[in-house]
Amino acid sequence: MKQLDFFYFFGSGYSYLSVMRIGNVAREAGVTVRWRPFNVRTVMGENNIALRTQHAKVRYMWRDIQRRAARHGVPFTGPPRWPTDPDLLANRVGMVAAEGGWCEDYTLASFRAWYLDGVELGSRQHLDAVLPPLGRDVDATIALADGPAAHERLVQETDAARDHGIFGAPAFVVDNETFWGDDRLEEAFAWAAGDHSLQVQPQT
Amino acid sequence: MKQLDFFYFFGSGYSYLSVMRIGNVAREAGVTVRWRPFNVRTVMGENNIALRTQHAKVRYMWRDIQRRAARHGVPFTGPPRWPTDPDLLANRVGMVAAEGGWCEDYTLASFRAWYLDGVELGSRQHLDAVLPPLGRDVDATIALADGPAAHERLVQETDAARDHGIFGAPAFVVDNETFWGDDRLEEAFAWAAGDHSLQVQPQT
Repeated sequence: MKQLDFFYFFGSGYSYLSVMRIGNVAREAGVTVRWRPFNVRTVMGENNIALRTQHAKVRYMWRDIQRRAARHGVPFTGPPRWPTDPDLLANRVGMVAAEGGWCEDYTLASFRAWYLDGVELGSRQHLDAVLPPLGRDVDATIALADGPAAHERLVQETDAARDHGIFGAPAFVVDNETFWGDDRLEEAFAWAAGDHSLQVQPQT
Repeated sequence: MKQLDFFYFFGSGYSYLSVMRIGNVAREAGVTVRWRPFNVRTVMGENNIALRTQHAKVRYMWRDIQRRAARHGVPFTGPPRWPTDPDLLANRVGMVAAEGGWCEDYTLASFRAWYLDGVELGSRQHLDAVLPPLGRDVDATIALADGPAAHERLVQETDAARDHGIFGAPAFVVDNETFWGDDRLEEAFAWAAGDHSLQVQPQT
């Protein structure tokens, strides 16, 4: 089965749209998704001044996300707390979850808590709400997320993202082709299916 | 007839896609397009470090434009000279053209010359190739573009773009709603038609 890598960040506003959409799109396409959180702050830091200081762009971003959520039937009740996850704890728990094979469920629950329940990512409130229903002990999971393996994996996943030319979240990689932004989700799956227009040979 | 404002820049890579597509989309939608070149460098300077220094993003941009051109049937023969139009002369001729009512034709001819014929925007070669077929005298037009009215109009159009919250090119404004990026072209026209999902009242 064809595999697509989904690179995203706990705390990226646009990643919410892809988190909520990619499961259905992948099922319909018959493609397996590898959920790969990474540290977008590192790769954006190399390329950009902090988005939060760009007022016109931030104002536009929330309105655009609202419009696109409506368009795709994704729930939207207003901009979430942002920036969030100051110590990258939500992202490091994502490393534990990816290692343990429960990253998709953890991600969906976390983005819902963040966007729809007003929870700060990486807070005790977030992890208390999200981990027990997944059968995970909160303190034990935090201890793992604070350990060297989780820190190291986050660096490695961020390096992997950078190696694919990724400079923002979300991004999709399939057959070594990189697509950036929730608005490229369908294009990435078209690529996975081999029917992107650039792949189709002209009729002769 | 509903009117949509099309803000773009002579020298913006993504604007090429919209320049080549918007005529057909607008005709089908029955919407009038007001072609409004503006100085994106000013509004980006407020928000961003220069795109040209962001290597991963630039590499991605040309590949993305290639893919999207293929998708939309827009000719693409490779990245154009970029950056281009160092003195904003192509953009200031755009002010003369907008004043005179021939901005759409000038823009289409210019973006084709830039992308498909390898011409530098604002060069003598560009203006010699583009202006005479439009019935415009090259020297007289350059004199107008170098005059105070053209300079002033460019400032005013850039202010208008900023007032609409625009921070990049291309952008579309309809009914005071702003859309950024060629990938929002269809969404902007859906808004113009009143059938964007955010505008549609839920069934009760």
